[in-house]
Amino acid sequence: MVIPLLNCDMGESFGNWTLGLDAEVMPYVDCANIACGYHASDPHVMRHTVALAAKHGVRIGAHPGYPDLMGFGRRSMTCSAAEVEDMMLYQAGALAGICRAEDAELSYIKPHGAMYNDMAANLELLEGAMRAVRAFDASLPLMVMATADTAPHRELAAKMGITLWFETFADRAYEANGHLASRRLEGAVHHDQATIVAQAIALAKGEALTARDGTALHLPCDTLCVHGDNPESIAAVRAIRDAFKALESA
Amino acid sequence: MVIPLLNCDMGESFGNWTLGLDAEVMPYVDCANIACGYHASDPHVMRHTVALAAKHGVRIGAHPGYPDLMGFGRRSMTCSAAEVEDMMLYQAGALAGICRAEDAELSYIKPHGAMYNDMAANLELLEGAMRAVRAFDASLPLMVMATADTAPHRELAAKMGITLWFETFADRAYEANGHLASRRLEGAVHHDQATIVAQAIALAKGEALTARDGTALHLPCDTLCVHGDNPESIAAVRAIRDAFKALESA
Amino acid sequence: MVIPLLNCDMGESFGNWTLGLDAEVMPYVDCANIACGYHASDPHVMRHTVALAAKHGVRIGAHPGYPDLMGFGRRSMTCSAAEVEDMMLYQAGALAGICRAEDAELSYIKPHGAMYNDMAANLELLEGAMRAVRAFDASLPLMVMATADTAPHRELAAKMGITLWFETFADRAYEANGHLASRRLEGAVHHDQATIVAQAIALAKGEALTARDGTALHLPCDTLCVHGDNPESIAAVRAIRDAFKALESA
Amino acid sequence: MVIPLLNCDMGESFGNWTLGLDAEVMPYVDCANIACGYHASDPHVMRHTVALAAKHGVRIGAHPGYPDLMGFGRRSMTCSAAEVEDMMLYQAGALAGICRAEDAELSYIKPHGAMYNDMAANLELLEGAMRAVRAFDASLPLMVMATADTAPHRELAAKMGITLWFETFADRAYEANGHLASRRLEGAVHHDQATIVAQAIALAKGEALTARDGTALHLPCDTLCVHGDNPESIAAVRAIRDAFKALESA
Repeated sequence: MVIPLLNCDMGESFGNWTLGLDAEVMPYVDCANIACGYHASDPHVMRHTVALAAKHGVRIGAHPGYPDLMGFGRRSMTCSAAEVEDMMLYQAGALAGICRAEDAELSYIKPHGAMYNDMAANLELLEGAMRAVRAFDASLPLMVMATADTAPHRELAAKMGITLWFETFADRAYEANGHLASRRLEGAVHHDQATIVAQAIALAKGEALTARDGTALHLPCDTLCVHGDNPESIAAVRAIRDAFKALESA
Repeated sequence: MVIPLLNCDMGESFGNWTLGLDAEVMPYVDCANIACGYHASDPHVMRHTVALAAKHGVRIGAHPGYPDLMGFGRRSMTCSAAEVEDMMLYQAGALAGICRAEDAELSYIKPHGAMYNDMAANLELLEGAMRAVRAFDASLPLMVMATADTAPHRELAAKMGITLWFETFADRAYEANGHLASRRLEGAVHHDQATIVAQAIALAKGEALTARDGTALHLPCDTLCVHGDNPESIAAVRAIRDAFKALESA
Repeated sequence: MVIPLLNCDMGESFGNWTLGLDAEVMPYVDCANIACGYHASDPHVMRHTVALAAKHGVRIGAHPGYPDLMGFGRRSMTCSAAEVEDMMLYQAGALAGICRAEDAELSYIKPHGAMYNDMAANLELLEGAMRAVRAFDASLPLMVMATADTAPHRELAAKMGITLWFETFADRAYEANGHLASRRLEGAVHHDQATIVAQAIALAKGEALTARDGTALHLPCDTLCVHGDNPESIAAVRAIRDAFKALESA
Repeated sequence: MVIPLLNCDMGESFGNWTLGLDAEVMPYVDCANIACGYHASDPHVMRHTVALAAKHGVRIGAHPGYPDLMGFGRRSMTCSAAEVEDMMLYQAGALAGICRAEDAELSYIKPHGAMYNDMAANLELLEGAMRAVRAFDASLPLMVMATADTAPHRELAAKMGITLWFETFADRAYEANGHLASRRLEGAVHHDQATIVAQAIALAKGEALTARDGTALHLPCDTLCVHGDNPESIAAVRAIRDAFKALESA
């Protein structure tokens, strides 16, 4: 059993606005997805976040998004695959530039928000993203949503020579196809820490989850997304971290 | 005599807006200062411009500016040296990211507009810019305005381990201190091609210019700024190029 | 027969970037759709454009779009109806503010680009737009795309107490449902001036067009969209204007 | 004695970022300075803030700033007087547009941050701002910084037909010329509530403050700036409000 990496969105402050408890959650995660200025962050926030990650030995990932600060990159935009490709190169490069000042390096790329979701639904956009990764540094893994049928994504990645990291969520209910249940549905988000930890352990062990329709759902899980929004979510991260340590030493 | 490099601002289109005759002027210059998205350009324009420069064997320089699209980076903003440093790392990194997709590399950095002018007047901001260059790639020259007394800039560059390229203008009148005469003054901008070429040759030969107050002005000239705005300016670039070829073969 | 008003997108320059031959086309149109800063324009461009329209006695319309300068408002964004409503109030208000300095007034509202298209396809978004118009000034017509079946749009407008102006295009081929043929299809855009004028006359007379599949298409036409992008399009505007004058005096 | 109005910056959230305890401070102030999208806020935040102010019967002021979200409008930009004028018309109009949806009205204009400070130091910019107010609605007061010598500002306002509201601060130390002591100086910001209330009372009564150099400073005070940033500042607002009520009933 390979214990999944814990990844967390970071560096989502912007100018005078602060968001997220980055300093509090950083000690407990493996991977920091750092916003690159299109949906959040600015050069100063990026630098501060890179330094924080480097201090804690946390891997740094570029977290590029659509150019929509007002919508926090959560609104889908009808960008072409070529636009996604170039936007990812721009943002990954920008973060890599900041990293040079802190003797740090990019380790992976995870698209943000609507761009991440659109890639999961649209192979053409995913291929655009893969072209960006291949051109930027083909050794960097691309983090994508784990779904019930990852074969098309794996095939495309093999063709493009790209490594995928499949990502799952411990605090979200799933549909049978492996997509996240809409937040509008009751029970879509788990708030109970025991439930969250149990789902994390199941994902780490490769056990099936139960989808909303009651069917068994197997998801690949290279990495688990956690949150540093508030004290409760950080407590959940610590509990998952402890559970994973117990798994490792078992 | 070392013939000055001809540099030109490029890639200043943005989205649906086109600016500059990049394709027409590219064949005649040595260095393309490519806008990085803060005062102009976007990832697609940057990629297209990098590809064009690479095709013509023209050196690619990052052309970072203040974050002011509406003002085209020409309005001074009271940014701190640390802000300038981080903004330059971000923008240079972003262009370097785009370059990877075209097998191209950054060769130098030239700040744009108000950032460029502010650095010439404020050693603290210049040092911020130098910290950015040193962290990004200390082997990259930083292009700065040539003035009558470059000693403070040279000393700072020596301390920081940075190479400076001093830049002059063939189509602008100078004040005695080596600053450009304000565009509001009559005669501040040369429009006559013969005058422009004569000034370019004088600068290349290291001969003194005559400042507006009649005094002799010696300026170092590693590189000469030319323009691709319109057919007239491109004709002037070609004339300077021809004059420099004649100098070389003389 | 009521001669359709000629409307044209205007004020789409931005900062240092110029777009459109506003001064050349203004004398020949009835309605200037003036960009409001979200997809194009800035306060100075808006002011200049308002003054130009006022000088020619041309009606001023707010031309609000999605907040996407890089994409010129042409990329659909998954905005909610409430977001569209508030964005329209903001942009119409901003233009109205500029109008006060030129003793001018708003006469109508025409959404731009992807927002315009999304409203044609999504009654919820259209209702958001109507709420904005009703709150801003219920006497202002809202310009919308004429389609083969405008009943749903008319019913909603009646319910909301809003006047609709149906808009057609003289230089575009239509599908049978009244939507514009995709620009990617051959023959989607008419370039021949005689064809354009003939289609304008048919629309003005209420005659059927021939859709791409050969069927007859009747479209309501309160206003006809024309373009000031280049000398050819302006020549077409003048030709349409002359043809409409002939219709009026006939 | 006319009790000064309490004004507070509001609506400075932006998209996904929240700033300020608007709902908590609104009940205790007279005037809400609402950000207009250039330095903070967006159409949705503006609408929510207008509704909140209207609910509490608080006067609504437009709070326009420089177009610098990343710098929160706190960085001076070398804008011309004409640019300031048009930017103010745009932003005041945008807020007025939002107000229409909530049956609310603008009551005054207070420039924000660097624009506010630049106007205090530069009569040309102040005149640009006055042109904007005069064109927008000459009956709206313009809020400006109270200084030791307000004669030039009063004269300009008289010439332009504009009403000024002079603004003072209860939690800041002053220089002899009536400018705020730099935040970098020790003692520049008062944190002790008793000190803040005492200064507010002195300003309300027209009593002299003691400037940093020990001299007496008389400042006109139509309105006092208070803050809703955190629970401490809101407690101070309530204490000032109580002290002013006592003054009124005395």
